[in-house]
Amino acid sequence: MRFDGRENNQIRSVIITNNYLMSPQGSVLIEMGNTKVICTATVEDSTARHLVGTGQGWVTAEYGMLPGSTGTRKKRDKGKPDGRSVEIQRLIGRALRSVVDMQKLGERTIWIDCDVIQADGGTRTASITGAFVAMAEAMKWMKSEGMIDEIPVKGFVSAISVGIVEDERILDLCYQEDSRAMVDMNVVMTDAGEYIEIQGTGEERPFRPEELAELLALAAKGCSDLHKIQKEITGEL
Amino acid sequence: MRFDGRENNQIRSVIITNNYLMSPQGSVLIEMGNTKVICTATVEDSTARHLVGTGQGWVTAEYGMLPGSTGTRKKRDKGKPDGRSVEIQRLIGRALRSVVDMQKLGERTIWIDCDVIQADGGTRTASITGAFVAMAEAMKWMKSEGMIDEIPVKGFVSAISVGIVEDERILDLCYQEDSRAMVDMNVVMTDAGEYIEIQGTGEERPFRPEELAELLALAAKGCSDLHKIQKEITGEL
Amino acid sequence: MRFDGRENNQIRSVIITNNYLMSPQGSVLIEMGNTKVICTATVEDSTARHLVGTGQGWVTAEYGMLPGSTGTRKKRDKGKPDGRSVEIQRLIGRALRSVVDMQKLGERTIWIDCDVIQADGGTRTASITGAFVAMAEAMKWMKSEGMIDEIPVKGFVSAISVGIVEDERILDLCYQEDSRAMVDMNVVMTDAGEYIEIQGTGEERPFRPEELAELLALAAKGCSDLHKIQKEITGEL
Amino acid sequence: MRFDGRENNQIRSVIITNNYLMSPQGSVLIEMGNTKVICTATVEDSTARHLVGTGQGWVTAEYGMLPGSTGTRKKRDKGKPDGRSVEIQRLIGRALRSVVDMQKLGERTIWIDCDVIQADGGTRTASITGAFVAMAEAMKWMKSEGMIDEIPVKGFVSAISVGIVEDERILDLCYQEDSRAMVDMNVVMTDAGEYIEIQGTGEERPFRPEELAELLALAAKGCSDLHKIQKEITGEL
Amino acid sequence: MRFDGRENNQIRSVIITNNYLMSPQGSVLIEMGNTKVICTATVEDSTARHLVGTGQGWVTAEYGMLPGSTGTRKKRDKGKPDGRSVEIQRLIGRALRSVVDMQKLGERTIWIDCDVIQADGGTRTASITGAFVAMAEAMKWMKSEGMIDEIPVKGFVSAISVGIVEDERILDLCYQEDSRAMVDMNVVMTDAGEYIEIQGTGEERPFRPEELAELLALAAKGCSDLHKIQKEITGEL
Amino acid sequence: MRFDGRENNQIRSVIITNNYLMSPQGSVLIEMGNTKVICTATVEDSTARHLVGTGQGWVTAEYGMLPGSTGTRKKRDKGKPDGRSVEIQRLIGRALRSVVDMQKLGERTIWIDCDVIQADGGTRTASITGAFVAMAEAMKWMKSEGMIDEIPVKGFVSAISVGIVEDERILDLCYQEDSRAMVDMNVVMTDAGEYIEIQGTGEERPFRPEELAELLALAAKGCSDLHKIQKEITGEL
Repeated sequence: MRFDGRENNQIRSVIITNNYLMSPQGSVLIEMGNTKVICTATVEDSTARHLVGTGQGWVTAEYGMLPGSTGTRKKRDKGKPDGRSVEIQRLIGRALRSVVDMQKLGERTIWIDCDVIQADGGTRTASITGAFVAMAEAMKWMKSEGMIDEIPVKGFVSAISVGIVEDERILDLCYQEDSRAMVDMNVVMTDAGEYIEIQGTGEERPFRPEELAELLALAAKGCSDLHKIQKEITGEL
Repeated sequence: MRFDGRENNQIRSVIITNNYLMSPQGSVLIEMGNTKVICTATVEDSTARHLVGTGQGWVTAEYGMLPGSTGTRKKRDKGKPDGRSVEIQRLIGRALRSVVDMQKLGERTIWIDCDVIQADGGTRTASITGAFVAMAEAMKWMKSEGMIDEIPVKGFVSAISVGIVEDERILDLCYQEDSRAMVDMNVVMTDAGEYIEIQGTGEERPFRPEELAELLALAAKGCSDLHKIQKEITGEL
Repeated sequence: MRFDGRENNQIRSVIITNNYLMSPQGSVLIEMGNTKVICTATVEDSTARHLVGTGQGWVTAEYGMLPGSTGTRKKRDKGKPDGRSVEIQRLIGRALRSVVDMQKLGERTIWIDCDVIQADGGTRTASITGAFVAMAEAMKWMKSEGMIDEIPVKGFVSAISVGIVEDERILDLCYQEDSRAMVDMNVVMTDAGEYIEIQGTGEERPFRPEELAELLALAAKGCSDLHKIQKEITGEL
Repeated sequence: MRFDGRENNQIRSVIITNNYLMSPQGSVLIEMGNTKVICTATVEDSTARHLVGTGQGWVTAEYGMLPGSTGTRKKRDKGKPDGRSVEIQRLIGRALRSVVDMQKLGERTIWIDCDVIQADGGTRTASITGAFVAMAEAMKWMKSEGMIDEIPVKGFVSAISVGIVEDERILDLCYQEDSRAMVDMNVVMTDAGEYIEIQGTGEERPFRPEELAELLALAAKGCSDLHKIQKEITGEL
Repeated sequence: MRFDGRENNQIRSVIITNNYLMSPQGSVLIEMGNTKVICTATVEDSTARHLVGTGQGWVTAEYGMLPGSTGTRKKRDKGKPDGRSVEIQRLIGRALRSVVDMQKLGERTIWIDCDVIQADGGTRTASITGAFVAMAEAMKWMKSEGMIDEIPVKGFVSAISVGIVEDERILDLCYQEDSRAMVDMNVVMTDAGEYIEIQGTGEERPFRPEELAELLALAAKGCSDLHKIQKEITGEL
Repeated sequence: MRFDGRENNQIRSVIITNNYLMSPQGSVLIEMGNTKVICTATVEDSTARHLVGTGQGWVTAEYGMLPGSTGTRKKRDKGKPDGRSVEIQRLIGRALRSVVDMQKLGERTIWIDCDVIQADGGTRTASITGAFVAMAEAMKWMKSEGMIDEIPVKGFVSAISVGIVEDERILDLCYQEDSRAMVDMNVVMTDAGEYIEIQGTGEERPFRPEELAELLALAAKGCSDLHKIQKEITGEL
């Protein structure tokens, strides 16, 4: 059992508060344990520059952390976001785009913003899971406004971290576990059990093929749990 | 009566949630109507560069708005914050410093961060009112840790907006009122009824001395209401 | 009497040199005691982006200090101007716009530049007072060119500082006074005796309502003196 | 067979020119087909700031592309490097650090620079493979200078891309293949057959677990081929 | 004869106002015809970083143009100065350093600031000529303060432009001439008739060796005229 | 004789590898002794902004140094290029433009990129000499594509450094000589023996007219040698 009483294959308690803000077309507060992220989806009536005239839309993401979200105060970004934030926002955007039918979306942009209010490990995966819900809500708004005929997604998207800590393979690492992980992996999956993104790093040591297999099995379990929670909020799309 | 049913001299409903976050020494969520701001106070064990060796501490503030906080998505700052944010964070820092005894604080810095989750007018004044509570909580923590012997503040600080809309003088403008204001004023006061800062602007037209007097009376009433709410949370300091 | 022999309600000697430079449509050198500011007004034949198509013009201001203008060399701005300069240039722009009839100005921009050659306190108020004259001269040029039919201003604008130094209320603080002020206030007024902007700060201590009243009376006297000097240069508009 | 005559499990021809430049302690030109990258390793006699006093060293990497390296001219970075470059240089640094014994390296920094002269797919994996050789050469120089007693690496590191193009699983994609890939994966491995990093993305569609298995097998073959070439140059370490 | 009545070998009227500002140790306003530049020299009590411990001082220069100085308003620099300004400030610094005995200056920095109030051609050469006077005045102040025993310069430095306009070789081009010049050259000389810097450019066409000789002769005449004016102000050093 | 066995009037061995890269329309690697620069010319089908509608084209240059090119690692530029690089790229662009008939080029831009792989003195002059060849090759490509009827250059352009080291006048300084030069000059010439640019600096001491004459004679010899090598590669244009 883990220091917080969880089984190795157990995710933290998840609360997704829908319609968290007044203005964006989709907005949720996702809480996974102590990790809290505001995810919003804003619809803009023009597509990305390189897609003008193609009839296709775009989904893009930005990620930030409030100064008070971390153990020691995080300085605000001056200039471009730091390298870690760049990596994360590119990952979020790529993960969501992989299930969106850009032709059906039409020449529009959905801006995703993930802002971490409190960080206790797994902020990037919580961002993806929450942002999918915010995006789906924004699409439902677009449909209700007659902008689109159907919700242009091919499946649900969730994400979870897995890792090896003291040679235990565990699911959904909180910060205390993450900071001691030998191997760290983030997995993004569809509700059809297929992979959208796998990012695994041997932080402290390389890892063997059989370890990889175990970690992927844990991740599939975690993503499946999250897909159920997403569907309770958005309904089938 | 106003569009939301308030009297001209009535502030919006105020909720201050204390200890909103795990990490900072002081943190509140302040809600004034639909305006919501997270205010945190983080204690750093060194003073500002120009004060090293003087035995004096420092209080400094930063202010930001989440992209989803406003009616149309607010772009994240690249490089330095925009002019309006600079003005606001300088105002917050100045207002709090005016009541802090820097010698009693000792060579430490209190970082104030005010991040607007949702904006409906009055974000700068809500930031000051909330940040005072977060700062007071951080000082109570410092006292409990034996870093200081007494809470080094000379009084409570709150702030409120007043303005002239269609020739009515009103207190605590929400966005719909603020955007149509002819005259707009922000007032920061102590619980002794003295002024810390007055910033009044004739947005649409200059204003007469007697109008100034009426606006200042409204502001005094609003600040007094807020001081009561602050004291309920922090107790006497 | 003050260290430089002035009465408490006396402004410094003021010299405004008109047509100071060849190129801008309006340009003055304003000297208030040892404070010297070059103020220019340049007419651009397009309005601000958010006003295109509305028939309205715009007035915008920038403020800078030469490296040699201050006691210790002031570093040149890298990137955006520093917070203090941002505050000041926003104040200058707002003050001038408040008396301009943007519809009569037509879709044009007047760029105001205030560059401090020598700083001895009161640079922002000298900038406003000088910039008004430069703007008026540029408007007279526009009228002579047939671009406008009348000078599109509703009144004269001047600005002055007041403050409390060792519990004396004084008018038009020079640097030596300003650096020791307990309370510091900048007031922008029209020649009709109305307020355009009031910015008062309790630097060292809060201030009482009766102190505010005295300071405002001093400011009214100072602005009135300056309006007379402005009118000697521009004539009635 | 592929458009360039290769088998699906065949890497491109690889040429590593050692000691390519005069100044850096290690420098190679690595050519994988038409992809050409200059990789240098420079030894600095101080460690990263967060490691001062720990006795440990650091390895950090930067990545850039010459303007003439790509099909349409690549603009030079202004400000921080673009998001893709940030991702890549973080990957390179992480991959090399994973096999370095930082305690044996001592309080020194090895700067890795990977500059792409010509890009035809696989620049990040070629960078890692070449940078490992440059780093090893720099370490041999350090040993010859008496700075270290043994080469402080735990294994050889190489990297290769794999992907799915028109439902074929292929190894070492060139640009023409990469631009049409449905699934794209970069794998970094040790010569013990263990994983250092796996980054797989479903660009056009999600991918199934059995596809993942096939791609990983191809990658293991490619990395093994590259480890042989590396050892021919550096000898056993 | 030229459009403004000057002979081909005649400089414009020159006025150098010494002690133009209160704060810097040296400050002049130099006017060459309509070109006006404020040149200041500020003494800082530490040398450049790369010279600490060598006993040597440093002279460095910055150059700027006020927005109202040119025919169309010059935008303020955001970020680093533009390429032209960088070139000019490097030239000014190099020119002055070439005659300063850095050992006798001691570990101090002289900051030179040249700010163009009005530009009518030849701003960089006016800057050098004026900055030399400001630097000399600052050195005289240092001597009077007992910081140095003698003025540490090896000679006087002045600069002038020459050029070919409609195949006429002329001295000290004003803007109207400069903008039509086929060949443009700036020459910096000592009062011993030696060259410090020659920068000649065939703007519209290459130039022949005999043309070069004629231009250099004109420049020698111009610099000699300026050295006389400098000596009238500073006296022999 | 010099430390590397050359006569005072002898250039280093020169190798120009044409068609060095796949993508740019012109690309060379130029080696002058140990100095190695990649020069590319890329044709863009639009002219500079200020020339749109004039029928004229533009040539612009950028210059960079790889981190591993110098004795101690050169930091990558953050933000705008450093002052030295700005100077150099402006020089390269000016030198090439001086012989291009912009009307015959038509409304196109030729981007020149000079990237230093290894620096051993004379990188700016090698860049000009190499960039001229790359530009000529790009123009030949344009002609073969039917974009232009003839190669729009008025002559060949090469550049060389000369200097005074220990009172010897020498041609084509390598780094070891350049770092000890009293006087340093870069000369750009046409194959008609005319000057395009002369930049001479008295680094350690001013220089006399007769020294200038000797240096110019050496430069003419060096440029002539380089023109021959250029013509062997491009043929007559």
